[in-house]
This record gives sequence, structure tokens and C-alpha cells, in this order.
Amino acid sequence: MEMTVAQLAERIGAETVGKTDGANQLIGSVAPVDTAGPGEVTFLANDKHRAAVEACGAGAVIVAERLEGLDKLQLVVKNVDLALIEDLTLFAPKLKPAPEGIDATAKVAEDAKIGPGVFVGPGVAIGDVAEIGENSVISGGCKIGENSKVGANCRLDSNVVVYHNCRLGDNVIIQANSTIGATGFGYSFIDGSHRLIPHNGGVVIEDFVEIGANCCIDRAKFGNTVIGAGTKIDNLVQIGHNVRMGKCCLIAALVGVSGSCKLGDGVVLGGQVGMVDNIELGSGVMVAAKSGVINDIEADRKVAWTPAIDRREAYRIISLMMRLPEIAKQVKKLGKRMDSLEAAEDDKN
Amino acid sequence: MEMTVAQLAERIGAETVGKTDGANQLIGSVAPVDTAGPGEVTFLANDKHRAAVEACGAGAVIVAERLEGLDKLQLVVKNVDLALIEDLTLFAPKLKPAPEGIDATAKVAEDAKIGPGVFVGPGVAIGDVAEIGENSVISGGCKIGENSKVGANCRLDSNVVVYHNCRLGDNVIIQANSTIGATGFGYSFIDGSHRLIPHNGGVVIEDFVEIGANCCIDRAKFGNTVIGAGTKIDNLVQIGHNVRMGKCCLIAALVGVSGSCKLGDGVVLGGQVGMVDNIELGSGVMVAAKSGVINDIEADRKVAWTPAIDRREAYRIISLMMRLPEIAKQVKKLGKRMDSLEAAEDDKN
Amino acid sequence: MEMTVAQLAERIGAETVGKTDGANQLIGSVAPVDTAGPGEVTFLANDKHRAAVEACGAGAVIVAERLEGLDKLQLVVKNVDLALIEDLTLFAPKLKPAPEGIDATAKVAEDAKIGPGVFVGPGVAIGDVAEIGENSVISGGCKIGENSKVGANCRLDSNVVVYHNCRLGDNVIIQANSTIGATGFGYSFIDGSHRLIPHNGGVVIEDFVEIGANCCIDRAKFGNTVIGAGTKIDNLVQIGHNVRMGKCCLIAALVGVSGSCKLGDGVVLGGQVGMVDNIELGSGVMVAAKSGVINDIEADRKVAWTPAIDRREAYRIISLMMRLPEIAKQVKKLGKRMDSLEAAEDDKN
Repeated sequence: MEMTVAQLAERIGAETVGKTDGANQLIGSVAPVDTAGPGEVTFLANDKHRAAVEACGAGAVIVAERLEGLDKLQLVVKNVDLALIEDLTLFAPKLKPAPEGIDATAKVAEDAKIGPGVFVGPGVAIGDVAEIGENSVISGGCKIGENSKVGANCRLDSNVVVYHNCRLGDNVIIQANSTIGATGFGYSFIDGSHRLIPHNGGVVIEDFVEIGANCCIDRAKFGNTVIGAGTKIDNLVQIGHNVRMGKCCLIAALVGVSGSCKLGDGVVLGGQVGMVDNIELGSGVMVAAKSGVINDIEADRKVAWTPAIDRREAYRIISLMMRLPEIAKQVKKLGKRMDSLEAAEDDKN
Repeated sequence: MEMTVAQLAERIGAETVGKTDGANQLIGSVAPVDTAGPGEVTFLANDKHRAAVEACGAGAVIVAERLEGLDKLQLVVKNVDLALIEDLTLFAPKLKPAPEGIDATAKVAEDAKIGPGVFVGPGVAIGDVAEIGENSVISGGCKIGENSKVGANCRLDSNVVVYHNCRLGDNVIIQANSTIGATGFGYSFIDGSHRLIPHNGGVVIEDFVEIGANCCIDRAKFGNTVIGAGTKIDNLVQIGHNVRMGKCCLIAALVGVSGSCKLGDGVVLGGQVGMVDNIELGSGVMVAAKSGVINDIEADRKVAWTPAIDRREAYRIISLMMRLPEIAKQVKKLGKRMDSLEAAEDDKN
Repeated sequence: MEMTVAQLAERIGAETVGKTDGANQLIGSVAPVDTAGPGEVTFLANDKHRAAVEACGAGAVIVAERLEGLDKLQLVVKNVDLALIEDLTLFAPKLKPAPEGIDATAKVAEDAKIGPGVFVGPGVAIGDVAEIGENSVISGGCKIGENSKVGANCRLDSNVVVYHNCRLGDNVIIQANSTIGATGFGYSFIDGSHRLIPHNGGVVIEDFVEIGANCCIDRAKFGNTVIGAGTKIDNLVQIGHNVRMGKCCLIAALVGVSGSCKLGDGVVLGGQVGMVDNIELGSGVMVAAKSGVINDIEADRKVAWTPAIDRREAYRIISLMMRLPEIAKQVKKLGKRMDSLEAAEDDKN
């Protein structure tokens, strides 16, 4: 897809300012400032790239406010992020749409219900009483267990495994090789061996949840592990049994949330964060990358470090740790000065 | 499945005490204290939930000792954990049993040996000379490499990959999307490039081992990577080449055990623990979550932190780190007091 | 495969010295010092194993220099690592070669191009306009997306997923259950929900890259995520969108590299390292296991700790942390001594 800068401006509701004689330039894609050429539109999301924008070769620059003195065609929009999403959507590579229907090599249980407009890819297996809502795409190699329900307009990428008795809402995306509903890590040590505690519960994934590749969301022992609506999860994330996660959380890669943790709405966990089991994070809590959370955290607190504490306090402690060599030297020196003073004092007595 | 409290008591060998007029109440599932209703049985695993039990609506409560003054029907058992496992097993959701036989879309090598009662799911590939022991379930999408053996009563969930020359004992469970026997991360830098060291060895997984979803157990360079009988491994765990792990270990999610490490029996590694290569943990060692182990650890030691040291020592150091702002202030103050004293001393001389 | 020590020596260009009367001994495999028997060759890679070599039962020992006084047949080579690789290759278990051709259960788009000598395994799906270069092996269950190219002599193990518009060079290995080209974790919070930023870009994996099992390499928002030639990546690694990694890097297990990071050539990341987004590591940087990198690092620096700082400085700080109990005690003691001195001073005034 290609269009002129003028057409693009109209599509995204932008005002064209600056070097407007370039309005007929054809644009075919979006590019970052440092590589954008005349056939590409770029954007200024952060003022620190202002100099780079001046030097760039883009056909047009999306900005939030007109930049005085910039000799480029500018597209002024209310929300640069939104305009970027719209542009990227316009110029997305055209892929063949998933066909409708069930591939001949798929194995769909007789009493499974497959909605209209659904694609079931090659090698998929769908169990008894399972349901796939309308217009959902179940890509090749996926397995959907007995009595699991996938809502409408979902996209399960290749080789995703959903065990039995799980429920996915509408508009859910799960990327390749992820596993939903495996049995959690719950054992009791009885008579000399670890005995698995049966996991009779399931997993509930609400609307608009997006889950990355190679993730694991374990099923519950009783009731359900729940991922709240609008929550987004990166790759290689582990969510333990009976976790209850609120709406619109953001969970970065390689995070581990242990069993029975409760997260409020809008919680943000940075990459490689770990949480011990059975703790609760209030809504809006932000945990810095690599932190280890071992206690409940009240709503809207920002925490960091292992064990996770108030973020500012953590940074203060870390900067003092950096100064430990100096502090240790001071203590040593103080000891010597003290020795001298005491010796002088002794001399007097 | 539903049964009366009286029938349930008989099944799990419990004594009914307390409000025994509810013995005819029908019970259909197990639930935690905070959600249990009249048709559900709950349990008191920890005295701190005593108040919650008093307030709960469960039809019966499993306890280890009769709770005086509790106005509920109590089921007194010797081992609450065991009773819980029995109850969850009784009330487990009824799933269609895996059928017997080889799915028409599976690809089984002519000279592979498939035992009686085995299920081989759709899209499975089983290589030359491989063997599957009786009553094992090889779910859809699994690949079993050449000359690998799976014992009896095993369960490999969907899309598990077992490379060639691996051996699984009996009663082994491997959950979806796990990879057994990939080549380990062993390279030599020769003439300007990283040359892979061939991995001629295999993987041995002993009886009753249970491995979570999306795990990786690498094959050995020579001999075998070994996972000892009864060991349980959570999701997203990495076990490097030539690791030798003892019996009944517990390995939590996102752990990384580097090549050639040796773990004794009953070792417990918390979530996100990492171990450098070629070190040895004695039997019974417990490593706290997120720790980084860089040295051998003697049997039965409890360690924490990075680098992992004695757990009590680690906690002491961490609590002192928390006090660093105060300590730094004290040092600064001491310096000033010292200055004053020295000045006073100078004045005298 | 078996051969005499003399034949082996000739194959690897070794000089036989020491107890050369064993030159007719048949050798069938390579084994580590502690388990090697008469039919096996072992090697001395590190002088600290000299005593073990003396005690070992191997038929021959590969060494870099003749060991005086060692009563064993020695094979003296220029490069022990290289000889080890050659030996392991010679004695590798013989596996049935992947057959040529497309399995009947594979689903290859009509306009995909499959080179000569290629094997396409059972249940594979290959999308429109995709290309597989000559002699590559696409194992069972792999999915290759629309318009993706796989070079010559590649090996994609079972259940690997490559999304659309990705490019793999020649001699690339990707192990089982890895995911190449999933959409990255890029969201903008607009009008109360996290909106996905479309990822129009792809992934470029250059020649001789080897990627472990259950890894994720995300596609770019624009342009490409790039993994440089000769780079090797362990299992369960997360590489974010738009990362640009140089040549011959080594990335250990469970590492997370966030979006838009730039790594030079020969960078080494230890296990469980994390990097925040948009930072740059110069060529030759080495990051110790478990470190958290939050700033750019200049070429050839060795860093450790979270936040990652100069490695020697980090070790100095860590050793001081270990001494914190002692330092705190000293500070307390100094305070008391100060009190006494001040009191004495007061008495005088």
C-alpha cells in the first residue's frame, strides 16, 4: 500500500505544516528516524530525538506540536502513539488471510462446536465438547482440550496447547508454543515421596488478553487461575496455579508469579521479576525488573530490588552499596584516628 | 461425582465430629475456605485460617485434630494433605479417557515397539527402534526420536519433543511443549568461531519424575544427563548437559542449572535460581528463590542470595543493607565528632 | 564405529607417545576422565585433572603436551578442544539420516519453493512464497510462515515456529519448540487500554547461528530484529523486538534482552542476565550471570551485578557486603569509644 503524504494526513486526521510542498510524496511504510527515507514517514515521540529528526531523510514527520524552524513536512496529531499505530496498521505487510474452515488434517471431536468464520489449521486437535467462537483462528499444531472454550475473534498461533476445562474470552491472542492449563507445581511430601495435589480447577482468560510465545499459565487446584481483561503478557512467563490477575496488567518476559498470588488491576511487572506464593499486589503496583517480591504491596506503590521495597529507598540503598568501598575506608580511618586519640588520652592519665 | 459427608468420611478414613447432623449433606467438590459452600468440603491446613473456617459455609471441614467449639461438621484425619489429595482425586472432573491405539495421522517407524494399552495421538512422530511402554499416553504433536525409550504408564502431553537416545522410566509425566534431549550449550572458540562440541550422550529420566511445561533438559556430551527418580520440575526450567540430579528433588520455575552440575537427593531449588556449571549440591540442600549458586554446597545446608551463602547469614546481611542509610549517617556523624575531638586535642597542644 | 588408537591418532593428526604398546587397542567412544575405560579415549583439558588422568582406565589420553612420567598412551595434539570435537564426531551415535522429500502429511503452499535435498517432516506447514534452501531439514511439526526464507543446510528441529517475513541464512540450527518472529511486547496506553503497536518488521538470522530449545526471537516493529552470523544462543532465551545482535555472541540460558538493544560482536551474556530496553553493549563485552544491565557498556568491558558495573568493582562491593556485619559492629564500637572520649573530654572542661 502506498499513498501520498496528503492522503496519509487525511487518514490519520493530521494537520500538515512546514515544508508542505512535499505533500504529493508517496509513502509506503513507517521507519524510525535514523533509517527513514523519502518514501517513509517517521515520528518524534521524544524531544531528545529532535536533532535526529532535523537530519533525517523521511518524507514526513509525525509530531505532537509543530516544530518551528524544522525544514520538513510535519504531520501534527493529537496523539503520536495513536498515529503511529494507525500508520503501522495502514502500511502493514499484506498477508494472505487465514482461510475459513477446518483443515483436512485437523482432528475435531464430533461434539465440539466450531463457530462460523473459524479457521482450524493443519494438525490441530480439538477435544470433546470444546467450543471455538466465531471468526477465531486456531493455527496449525494447536491442541484444545476437552470442554475448553475459546471465544470469538481469538487468535491462537501455531502449536499452542490449551488443556481441558479452560475458558478464553473474546479477542484473546496467544502466541506460538504457549501452554495454558498445565497442572501446577503443588506437591505434598507424604511417606517419603512428593505426591501431586490434583488440580481440579481450570484457567479463565478474559477478553482482550494477549499472551506471548512459550508462556505457561497453570490451571488451579480448585476454582480457576484468572487473567483479567486487557492484560498483556510477554514471552516465557510463568503464571502459577490459582493466581488471580486483574485487568490491564503488563507482565514482561521471564517473570515468575508463584501459586495463589493476587494482582490488582494495572499492575506492571518488569522482566525477570519473581513473586513468592500467596502474596497480594494492590492495583497500580509497579515492580522494577529483576525484583523479588516476598511481601504484600499496597496499591500504587513502586517497588524494586530483592526483597522488593519502596523504589526510592531501594535506589538509595543501591547507591550506598556502590559507596561501600569508600564507607569501609572511612570506618578504618576512623578506627585509626580513634586509636591515636585514645593513646593521647592514655598518655595524659 | 457426589456423595454424602458420611460416605466421604468412610472413603478417606475420617472420624466425623462436631455438628454431625450434617452427615447426609451431599458433597461434590473440594474448595478453599473462603469460597466453600454447603455442597463442598474444605480443609484446615494451617491454624492461622481457624477464624476463616469458623466463618465459612462448607458442608464439612477436614482437620488434623478436633477443633473444640467449632460449630461445623469436622472430618478428623491423620494427614490433612493426604486427605486433600484423596478428596481432590474423588471429585476430579471426569475426562474422557485417552483411547487406546495409534491415531491414523501419527507416524510410527516400522521397527518402533508400541506396548499394549498405549495411546499415540494425532500428528505424533515416533522414530526408529523407539519404544513406548504399556499404558503410556503420547499426546498429539509429540515427537519421540530414534532409539528413545518411554517406560510404562507415562504421560507425555501435547507437543513434547524427546530427541534420540533418551530413556524415560515408568510413571513419568512431561507436560506440554517441553524439550528433552536437545544439544547442550557447549562450544569451543577455535580459529575465530564458536565450534559446537558434539553431544554424543543422552538423557535418562528415572521413574516417577514429573516435568512441567516448556522445560528443557539437554542431552550429555558423553554418558547421560540424569534426573533422579521422584524428582519434580516446574515450568520453564533449564537443565544443562551432563547434569546429574538425585532423587526426589524439587525444582521451581525458571531455574537454570548449568552443565555438569551434580545435585544430591532431595535438593530444593526455589524459583529463578541459577547455578554456574560444574558445581555440586549435597543431598537436602535448599536454595532460596532467585539465588545464584557459584560454589559447592554441603549436604543439608540452606542457602540464599547471590552469591549463595548460608541463609541466616544472607538474611543478616540483607537486613544490614536495609540499614545502610543509617549506617552511612552514623559514619558521617562519627567523622564530625572525631573532627571536633581532634580539634579540641590540637587546641590543647 | 571402532578403530585402533593408532588409527585414531592418524585421523586427528596426533603424535602417540608414552605407553605406545597399547596402539592396537580398539576405541569406540570418548569419555570423561572419571569414567573412561580401556575402549575409550579421554582428554586432559585442564591441568587440575592430571592426577585423575593418572588413575583413569582410558585406552588413550589426548593431551596438548607430552606428560612426563605418565604411564598411559598419550595422543599429543595442537588443540585438545579441536581433537575432542573430531573424536566426538567420529564416535557420534549413528542415526538414520533424515530422508529427502516432503512427508505426505506436510502442508506446503503451492507457491513455496523447496530446494533439492530438503526434508520436510510430518505435520509441517509451510506458507505462501516461503523458501527452503537446499539440504535443509525441517523436522516434524514445524511451521514456516508466509514469505519466510530458510537458507541452505539449515536444521529446524521439531515444532519450531517461524512466523511470516523472517529470513534465516545458511547453516542455521534452531532446536525444538523455539519461536521466531512472534510479535514483540510493544504497547501504548491509549484511552484506558493497552494498544498493541503493530510489528511490521521481521527477523533476520544470519549464517551459522545456532539457537537452543524453547527460545523466543521477536519480530521488529519496523526493519528487522537481527542475530549476527555465528552467534550461539542457549535455551529459554528471550530476544525482544528490534534487537540488533552482532556476530559470534554467546547468550546463555534464560537471558532476556529487551527491545531495541544493540549488541556488538563477540558479546557474552551469562545465564539469567537481563537488559533493559534501548541500551548498547560494545563488542567483546562480557556480562556475568544474573546481572541486570541498565546502561550502555563500552567495548571489551567485563561487568557484573545489578545494576551491572565493572566486574572487579562489583566483586569488591560484594565482598564488602559479606563483611557488613563486621563493619556495622565496628561502627557501633566506634560510637561507644567516641562516647567515652567525649565524656572524658567533658569531665575535663
